[in-house]
Amino acid sequence: MSWNESTQMEGGATEYSFSLTVGDHQVPGVYWAPAGGGDRLVLLGHGGTTHKKVEYIVEVAQMLVAKGIAAMAIDGPGHGDRVTDRWEHEPQRFGEMWEAGGGTDTMLGDWQAALDFVEAEHGARPTGWWGLSMGTMMGLPVTARESRIRVALLGLMGTWGPNADDLQALAPQVKCPVRFLVQWDDEVVPRESCLTLFGLLGSERKTLHANPGLHAAVPSFEVAQSVAYLDEHLR
Amino acid sequence: MSWNESTQMEGGATEYSFSLTVGDHQVPGVYWAPAGGGDRLVLLGHGGTTHKKVEYIVEVAQMLVAKGIAAMAIDGPGHGDRVTDRWEHEPQRFGEMWEAGGGTDTMLGDWQAALDFVEAEHGARPTGWWGLSMGTMMGLPVTARESRIRVALLGLMGTWGPNADDLQALAPQVKCPVRFLVQWDDEVVPRESCLTLFGLLGSERKTLHANPGLHAAVPSFEVAQSVAYLDEHLR
Repeated sequence: MSWNESTQMEGGATEYSFSLTVGDHQVPGVYWAPAGGGDRLVLLGHGGTTHKKVEYIVEVAQMLVAKGIAAMAIDGPGHGDRVTDRWEHEPQRFGEMWEAGGGTDTMLGDWQAALDFVEAEHGARPTGWWGLSMGTMMGLPVTARESRIRVALLGLMGTWGPNADDLQALAPQVKCPVRFLVQWDDEVVPRESCLTLFGLLGSERKTLHANPGLHAAVPSFEVAQSVAYLDEHLR
Repeated sequence: MSWNESTQMEGGATEYSFSLTVGDHQVPGVYWAPAGGGDRLVLLGHGGTTHKKVEYIVEVAQMLVAKGIAAMAIDGPGHGDRVTDRWEHEPQRFGEMWEAGGGTDTMLGDWQAALDFVEAEHGARPTGWWGLSMGTMMGLPVTARESRIRVALLGLMGTWGPNADDLQALAPQVKCPVRFLVQWDDEVVPRESCLTLFGLLGSERKTLHANPGLHAAVPSFEVAQSVAYLDEHLR
């Protein structure tokens, strides 16, 4: 367990990288601290075949720190710095990457260890989740199992894909407020399966936002509003 | 065509009632002017078996005038002050009320006459629509046919009900930004038909917001956000 290098960002924020040993594997992560440290935290789950510092994750982290909210991301199972040569540049083998990395159970342990690690240094704070697509394959189980998550931005995922059974089983155990994004013309995850997963969520307060467009074409206004949503619910 | 009595509201706003002669019938209406008159306008379409001054319409009008936006409502076909004794207190005969009042074509003429009347006094201003359920049975055709409508808040309606064919035919002609509300457990208008109608809308920028609950249980935060949406798009 160690903090590695840090980088100054605009506006007085700082980006730190870290690496954890969890069981038999390493979990590489990144932590963004706003000026002043931040009295709230959001965990950022990246999408399939990407990694903890893919462009849109860094953009959301920047939007969060601009609101005084700290953010943290780790590489998901079989992804990012945990990827083996074998999978690189083979997005069609996403399911194999996920399974080779240990799937849902390993992923749950990784995120809980990372949250423990960050809390050990910075203390427990109101905490939320932001993650779409594979970010929901990770975030829905984490939100269901981890009472420290108070609000979640999920979506672009359905009762579909390599951990469909886990998502279906765990969705009713999600009880916190959720905003769930759907892309109406999603060519990766069938729309109907996304609507089904939204319907299964156990939250009393859950809202689905659907926009036209393909899987990765979430409108920028919806991303900005998703950060505002977490900001509002973590106050 | 005449303006009738006016009533002072809180915050310096004024409510005016009016009555128009359109073809062979009278159209009773109400106009809410914010202090200063308002440089934008929203048309408010009430729901089935209610009327132009039902409680939630007045509440939305109050939220609009608080933002400096004028509002206007008329009684829909067969509704409010246009209702005949025969239909009163018979919500299950909603379809008959609508048809007896003249249906989609009469309704279109009524709203255009009312907008002409208000513009004759106050001038043309950026104009939007707010209407759910029967408020969308009216608002979708008005928005499709009337280029003066720049943005619309619609929902709680599908390819369903007494003017389903009109809605289906006109939806692709709606081109302005639309926010479309759906109640996930709608017991009146089948959810699937609402999703279908949203899919048919011709707008490039359209967003569906769905929340759990029955037809009339739209969350208050969603109503407040709907007014903010119109406010933003009419600037």
